[in-house]
Amino acid sequence: MSAIPEDFIRKTARLSEEVTRPFTQSKKIYVQGARADVRVGMREIQQAPTHGVQGVEENPAIPVYDTSGPYTDPNAKIDLLQGLPALRLPWILERQDSEELRDFSSEYGRERKHDPALAHLRFEHIRKPRRAQAGKNVTQMHYARRGIITPEMEYVALRENVKLEQLRSDPGYARLLTQHRGMSWGAHIPEAITSEFVRAEVAAGRAIIPANINHPELEPMIIGRNFRVKINTNIGNSAVSSSIEEEVEKMAWSARWGGDTLMDLSTGKHIHETREWILRNAPMPIGTVPIYQALEKVEGKAEELTWDIYRDTLVEQCEQGVDYFTIHAGVLLRYVPLTARRMTGIVSRGGSILAKWCLAHHKENFLYTNFEEICAIMQAYDVSFSLGDGLRPGSIYDANDEAQFAELRTLGELTQVAWRHDVQVMIEGPGHVPLHMIKENMDKELAECYEAPFYTLGPLTTDIAPGYDHITSGIGAANIGWYGTAMLCYVTPKEHLGLPNKQDVRDGIITYKLAAHAADLAKGFPGAQLRDNAVSKARFEFRWEDQFNLSLDPDKAREFHDETMPKEAHKVAHFCSMCGPNFCSMKITQDVRDYAASLGMSEEEALDKGMQEKAVEFKRQGAEIYKNA
Amino acid sequence: MSAIPEDFIRKTARLSEEVTRPFTQSKKIYVQGARADVRVGMREIQQAPTHGVQGVEENPAIPVYDTSGPYTDPNAKIDLLQGLPALRLPWILERQDSEELRDFSSEYGRERKHDPALAHLRFEHIRKPRRAQAGKNVTQMHYARRGIITPEMEYVALRENVKLEQLRSDPGYARLLTQHRGMSWGAHIPEAITSEFVRAEVAAGRAIIPANINHPELEPMIIGRNFRVKINTNIGNSAVSSSIEEEVEKMAWSARWGGDTLMDLSTGKHIHETREWILRNAPMPIGTVPIYQALEKVEGKAEELTWDIYRDTLVEQCEQGVDYFTIHAGVLLRYVPLTARRMTGIVSRGGSILAKWCLAHHKENFLYTNFEEICAIMQAYDVSFSLGDGLRPGSIYDANDEAQFAELRTLGELTQVAWRHDVQVMIEGPGHVPLHMIKENMDKELAECYEAPFYTLGPLTTDIAPGYDHITSGIGAANIGWYGTAMLCYVTPKEHLGLPNKQDVRDGIITYKLAAHAADLAKGFPGAQLRDNAVSKARFEFRWEDQFNLSLDPDKAREFHDETMPKEAHKVAHFCSMCGPNFCSMKITQDVRDYAASLGMSEEEALDKGMQEKAVEFKRQGAEIYKNA
Repeated sequence: MSAIPEDFIRKTARLSEEVTRPFTQSKKIYVQGARADVRVGMREIQQAPTHGVQGVEENPAIPVYDTSGPYTDPNAKIDLLQGLPALRLPWILERQDSEELRDFSSEYGRERKHDPALAHLRFEHIRKPRRAQAGKNVTQMHYARRGIITPEMEYVALRENVKLEQLRSDPGYARLLTQHRGMSWGAHIPEAITSEFVRAEVAAGRAIIPANINHPELEPMIIGRNFRVKINTNIGNSAVSSSIEEEVEKMAWSARWGGDTLMDLSTGKHIHETREWILRNAPMPIGTVPIYQALEKVEGKAEELTWDIYRDTLVEQCEQGVDYFTIHAGVLLRYVPLTARRMTGIVSRGGSILAKWCLAHHKENFLYTNFEEICAIMQAYDVSFSLGDGLRPGSIYDANDEAQFAELRTLGELTQVAWRHDVQVMIEGPGHVPLHMIKENMDKELAECYEAPFYTLGPLTTDIAPGYDHITSGIGAANIGWYGTAMLCYVTPKEHLGLPNKQDVRDGIITYKLAAHAADLAKGFPGAQLRDNAVSKARFEFRWEDQFNLSLDPDKAREFHDETMPKEAHKVAHFCSMCGPNFCSMKITQDVRDYAASLGMSEEEALDKGMQEKAVEFKRQGAEIYKNA
Repeated sequence: MSAIPEDFIRKTARLSEEVTRPFTQSKKIYVQGARADVRVGMREIQQAPTHGVQGVEENPAIPVYDTSGPYTDPNAKIDLLQGLPALRLPWILERQDSEELRDFSSEYGRERKHDPALAHLRFEHIRKPRRAQAGKNVTQMHYARRGIITPEMEYVALRENVKLEQLRSDPGYARLLTQHRGMSWGAHIPEAITSEFVRAEVAAGRAIIPANINHPELEPMIIGRNFRVKINTNIGNSAVSSSIEEEVEKMAWSARWGGDTLMDLSTGKHIHETREWILRNAPMPIGTVPIYQALEKVEGKAEELTWDIYRDTLVEQCEQGVDYFTIHAGVLLRYVPLTARRMTGIVSRGGSILAKWCLAHHKENFLYTNFEEICAIMQAYDVSFSLGDGLRPGSIYDANDEAQFAELRTLGELTQVAWRHDVQVMIEGPGHVPLHMIKENMDKELAECYEAPFYTLGPLTTDIAPGYDHITSGIGAANIGWYGTAMLCYVTPKEHLGLPNKQDVRDGIITYKLAAHAADLAKGFPGAQLRDNAVSKARFEFRWEDQFNLSLDPDKAREFHDETMPKEAHKVAHFCSMCGPNFCSMKITQDVRDYAASLGMSEEEALDKGMQEKAVEFKRQGAEIYKNA
């Protein structure tokens, strides 16, 4: 019988409808890889046909990259008490490079697992942890460097392509696939992403596939500047509020709106148990900042942190399945004084904890001095580094200063160390940076950190808009994404002011999805413009429902439209309340086009030669274009 | 006795408190020019002192550029029935280059003025219109080219500087004035804006001061790439909704949040009367698209538009006091076929009206063929051109195409014509453009239009986020502002979906204010970083109230903060709900700093030498930094 109270089971058993409801007119599809068990989930948005004077034109379904996992698949049985299916488990086992452990290696992990007082909070189907066999290396980078394409790499290649090759061979997509030539600042994006390309990028350290062998539920994704720009979202309870079921709900909410990865920044109670529930139900890579939990273990006293406590925390989280760790190993003792004249000092939580530890002991950062051992631990589970920027600028005043760039150089040095262990690495970046100083960050990161993927927080391009910092930072994010940043850490409207609620999370995610997409368009990522073209065609043809369904947030688009024009009949109206029926500009080109088609000429020719005739026709038709609908 | 019904008077007599409430801890100040009647309104934000271990440090008041006019001045008597004081009237009279007319020159204007059926809607104190005397030229460009500095130019110079020279000589501002070196893409911004610099820029056509001699209520402002980036907001009734008092309220609402200019895009009833109320109460330049009203006069039948109707509409609006006109004179007959293969054809309302007229008559655009006469009319009142981009792209697919750039070249040709009349010109720009194709727009505009100021709508950097288009376009706006665009036309969240409400207007304005500010920072506009530095210092010192008051939208910042920490006591808390008391990173640098000061050394020195001692002290103090507050 279950030790979990009925009440908890009831609350945890299912997610709210809001989080699992499939998107309107969308179908979950699966693209089959070469292996039977490589099946990549995507979303396909169905469109209505166009009714023109020349008859009916079918509009093809538009496939889009999908982060929502099984949650929006009506055929998936979602049971949070069981967790998601372990889709990667066969791949992990097949490699025969890892072994199942009898129990958790972490002392703390064992305590929590066996503490009867926690039984009512504990996920019930905790798997035994796996670890690399002695002498074996289980990382994706290791395989990539040996020339081996893992199923994860194949999965990622199919996922990045979003059916592009099939669409290219279908004439129904030809016009919709038209795309501007991008400007990719030295990135080299091929016409189509192949498994071999994925492998080569991971081998070179230019991309990572965060995928702990203890997180077999995850749908592999890739972070690198020659791939689609990704976004990270943050959740986490705090000392004040939130329960386990709320955190799981937030994770699924983030997946729904487009979070590619998710950091659990919990600092409250039961963070070990909460993390287990999240991991077992998360289709995306999960990151953490282990120093937060280590600090909780010493009751918030930074100077009492020890390597042993930290080490045990790392192992604890590795064996739960965390996919990447933010580790502030670049906050060196000698860099702390460089922050003294800053306007806002050290604004990274992890950075300030480590700085405090260094000052208190007058010793070098223990994450730096123990870095080789950290690599050895992370290698054994394939956990990726997210080398933290503990000295990132927290204000425009402090942007691009010596403290920041000194730390960046150290992160480059550590990258080389990690790569000697074949451990995957990404580099965290700022922060607050004015527009014209953003590119320097990207250029320095590529140079100092050997092209390891950059993962930035914004950056915020002004300090003066609290309440709108998703936007000030979205501007910086779009730019740095274009310059080559691989993943953008979202910022919500509540930044600097308080803990975001669900609505703030959605605002933050959509802002970052559009910023990432703006970057993909600018880089010319193959197929990226398909969705824009489809939205614009639908817009021009007054297919309102298609316009909503194709957009990043269909609910919001529909809600805004319906505020002024709520009736169903308005969804076929050839105008909206913005300009009203007399002032809509969208129809004239269609008349021009129809006219050309009726003459059976090329459009330009027809227009050139037939303008006089057209003039007569126009006058005969009277005010047809501008007549009230 | 007034002909206006009591009910209308009551509703119109005053603005809602929400629109006139002075900003918290802000003071309206006036900077005196060389002339007694040049007094430039600004807002000064008072700050609380900092309480540190070394005692109390006063924080100076921060002056900010203020668009709100008398509405936020508690000493101003606001009476919409009387209109604002005519502050420019003495300057206009002094020049002795204009004359008062007996009645309106426009036939339509006279009809409206003398129609007894409209008495209940009519502003009661309509001034007699003024016009240039025969043979005289009243434009700011004309005076500038003759080497004369008008009071308007002096006003603008003081306004752009925002007290910078006084602040520079006050050591209390030294640190706050620290600023990064900008990157201004060929703009040449001096260390301080002088009246002579303003004159030279207006003379060169690189900047305009839109200021109709029939709009003496306006507080002069300047639009040019060597000045602060400005934003335009749109209001206007439609056939469906809105009343006169609502439109006046929207105008004041726009001024409050930072609209530098405002376009009245009304297309509904009584637009002549509504415009009069707006103009008489508007402290900012007002723009219109005269073709909208002309089209209403022919009941929406574009093909029935005539030059006579349009001409009379121009004169009508010139004599009311409109400061700039959007005129789509570059939509040439031969360019219309270039739009045939576009994804979204012609999306400018004015552009589509003119295209329709051209097709219907198979004749050249009558705005183009009558352009010299238009110049002569606008010259007589000093109305500025906003040469419309009727063929701007309405989708990413259509960005930077031949139709768009063909029109741009024609706008350049027309700029030269207008300048021969000393009529001021700005050029409208796109639209929808991916990030990497934005700069080409700016470069081409400067080259083809001889550096006339660029005034762009966004541009939107993706098509896929209806409901969030203030953000997709804010990204483009910040970038193009940085590249040199002088004014950004705002986009609200309702773009493409419906008519914005008051909340949407506020969201649109703040988004564009922050985008414009991001551009000013990037360009290195002198003094621009002062406000960022002040916000950041307040943030670092946990002066919550100062942080709110210094921000672009203090109400929103306060509201967001108070959602989770509503009590007054929380306003002095050294943390917020985002990280909670144990995880706030903001205090460590202060400890470092205090320590250095106590040793009487430079901070770096102290830190370097005293680290060991500090370590001891830190341990003695225990967990002070992270203790619960």
